[in-house]
Amino acid sequence: MKYLVISTALSGRKSRRASQDFYQLFQAQRPEDEVKFIDLHDKNIQFSDGRNYLDYDGDTLELLTAIMESDGIVFCSPIFQASISAPLKNIFDLLPIHALEGKVVGLILIAGSPRHYLVGETQIKPILSYMYASILSKYVYIHEADFNADGQVSDSIQFRFKDLIDDLKNRVEANQYIQAQQMAFFKQA
Amino acid sequence: MKYLVISTALSGRKSRRASQDFYQLFQAQRPEDEVKFIDLHDKNIQFSDGRNYLDYDGDTLELLTAIMESDGIVFCSPIFQASISAPLKNIFDLLPIHALEGKVVGLILIAGSPRHYLVGETQIKPILSYMYASILSKYVYIHEADFNADGQVSDSIQFRFKDLIDDLKNRVEANQYIQAQQMAFFKQA
Amino acid sequence: MKYLVISTALSGRKSRRASQDFYQLFQAQRPEDEVKFIDLHDKNIQFSDGRNYLDYDGDTLELLTAIMESDGIVFCSPIFQASISAPLKNIFDLLPIHALEGKVVGLILIAGSPRHYLVGETQIKPILSYMYASILSKYVYIHEADFNADGQVSDSIQFRFKDLIDDLKNRVEANQYIQAQQMAFFKQA
Amino acid sequence: MKYLVISTALSGRKSRRASQDFYQLFQAQRPEDEVKFIDLHDKNIQFSDGRNYLDYDGDTLELLTAIMESDGIVFCSPIFQASISAPLKNIFDLLPIHALEGKVVGLILIAGSPRHYLVGETQIKPILSYMYASILSKYVYIHEADFNADGQVSDSIQFRFKDLIDDLKNRVEANQYIQAQQMAFFKQA
Repeated sequence: MKYLVISTALSGRKSRRASQDFYQLFQAQRPEDEVKFIDLHDKNIQFSDGRNYLDYDGDTLELLTAIMESDGIVFCSPIFQASISAPLKNIFDLLPIHALEGKVVGLILIAGSPRHYLVGETQIKPILSYMYASILSKYVYIHEADFNADGQVSDSIQFRFKDLIDDLKNRVEANQYIQAQQMAFFKQA
Repeated sequence: MKYLVISTALSGRKSRRASQDFYQLFQAQRPEDEVKFIDLHDKNIQFSDGRNYLDYDGDTLELLTAIMESDGIVFCSPIFQASISAPLKNIFDLLPIHALEGKVVGLILIAGSPRHYLVGETQIKPILSYMYASILSKYVYIHEADFNADGQVSDSIQFRFKDLIDDLKNRVEANQYIQAQQMAFFKQA
Repeated sequence: MKYLVISTALSGRKSRRASQDFYQLFQAQRPEDEVKFIDLHDKNIQFSDGRNYLDYDGDTLELLTAIMESDGIVFCSPIFQASISAPLKNIFDLLPIHALEGKVVGLILIAGSPRHYLVGETQIKPILSYMYASILSKYVYIHEADFNADGQVSDSIQFRFKDLIDDLKNRVEANQYIQAQQMAFFKQA
Repeated sequence: MKYLVISTALSGRKSRRASQDFYQLFQAQRPEDEVKFIDLHDKNIQFSDGRNYLDYDGDTLELLTAIMESDGIVFCSPIFQASISAPLKNIFDLLPIHALEGKVVGLILIAGSPRHYLVGETQIKPILSYMYASILSKYVYIHEADFNADGQVSDSIQFRFKDLIDDLKNRVEANQYIQAQQMAFFKQA
């Protein structure tokens, strides 16, 4: 399996730290799988201008290609102004509508307050759904109170991270099972 | 497998007709399964008043029991005032928060205009997600232009109906596959 | 001015208490205005079945008539299953689409957790907007931590209540000012 | 009064044409006011990286300064992937949370289908509300069928444009009226 973790925070130490910690946990928990990490803080991504995704270059092309090659993706994104961050939305704008078809997508959202919890439900999942992603229902929502004094996420969030990785793996396998069943059906017919 | 189709339209001939047609198609397509139909137009459902769901009686208890016993549920609901209909919301209010855990849920939405398409994404799916349902990503959205002169839905909607039934069956099976895998894992450990 | 406060909680002592306290504050703060209170807990409201609102009777007709006669309305509603409560949605379903045109509407939402704060923004305001209401942007969101041991809302919520009453009055007056300006313009022309 | 029209489309001839036509109409309809137009297609805007808005430079600073100096703003934005466009979201991310306080904001949304109408209600208005804007309830939603063969918007959209300009002017004046009343009240006290 090919997994990809993307951190979309251009600023904010806590968001980036949480993403990196999640990525390390992911590698440790799934040593047999390829797990890749892209941190947009270190990249120079262009705004979508309507081009085909293959016509971009540099970091933008690298990012889009990594997405297209993955079986499962986790987007780690801060919530700004009670809504989806622009760099995350830009990734979706850069991709073709069917880009996430057949891919499982999970979310880690980092916010300043518990009040913006529903952004995942009402803003981000509808986009993923429009783009045909197989969406993991439970996402990890992290806010101020979930960080320890040294900037690390709490144990309870660590457990949520582990569950998210398991959910991702299980859904990827379940989707492959359905696909195999359908193949077999069509071959019989 | 036990499936349940619920029509929540208290008025509106088109909504009820579409639900009934869907139910008949479902029975024909899945003769080996138990498929039940509840039309709220013929029932007297109480508003949720905070009681445990088993403490209701009459039609309300019958409805809630049928939901709790199902593996897969399709809610057929009109969209009123650009939003979820009150009888559908009331069903969710009557149920305990974990009621839909382990159940697959599909949606058929009937609206007056194509403009309210996103109600399924931003209003209904977030509730299903909160109640731990396994949500079918693609729902069937029917509006005025999708009905023939005799009040029947168009062929293209009929095809969507068939796909919804297949999606429902596939997801129920996939979830059982995941569960069986997990069982086996825990027995080994 | 005619103001109306509606409590839509059929259960839950805290919700009802907060609504009653708000109503008493409203009366004290605006002694020169008519302020009415309807508590759905004491009423028997029917589900919308598509009839014209004038064709209902009993408590349902009383409720709808009171709404139609008001200049400003405050809906006090619990949040159930991370979403709009069915009795509140049913009020909107019972009314014609233009029912709230020219009326100013404010919201008090009572929830178990701060996580459902955005329900007012993404679920309830869009309905009010569809029904042509003049919506007060800031609403009062009350959750567990905002209640004292004796079931009363905290001082900070009391201040929000006062601001909501002022906002309501100011917006009603501003709308009348605009209307008067437009009248004068048309008379001149 | 100072008004600002911002087109956030980086691609798409129809979106930009509609914005330009709206701007020209605005100038013609309000000759006594200052009406400014910024087309992001001709600008090089940076992604928000958490800096104070005054610490950006070039086109980004010019854009943010123009927003801060306006009494009324109309955002003309395409809808991409059934949601807010990244360049529009980026503007909000660049601004401080209180940036839109005391400003009236209107929306023109350009989409490929009528199905994404509710994006204005459930995605964009909640952000404006969070940022304390005074939001115009009715927005103009333009989709494929609203463009003539020569790329111009239909007469019915032109009428909506005129109404939006009137709504904007009326709300700016109404807000000034409320503010003057409050000033007078505080001076008396």
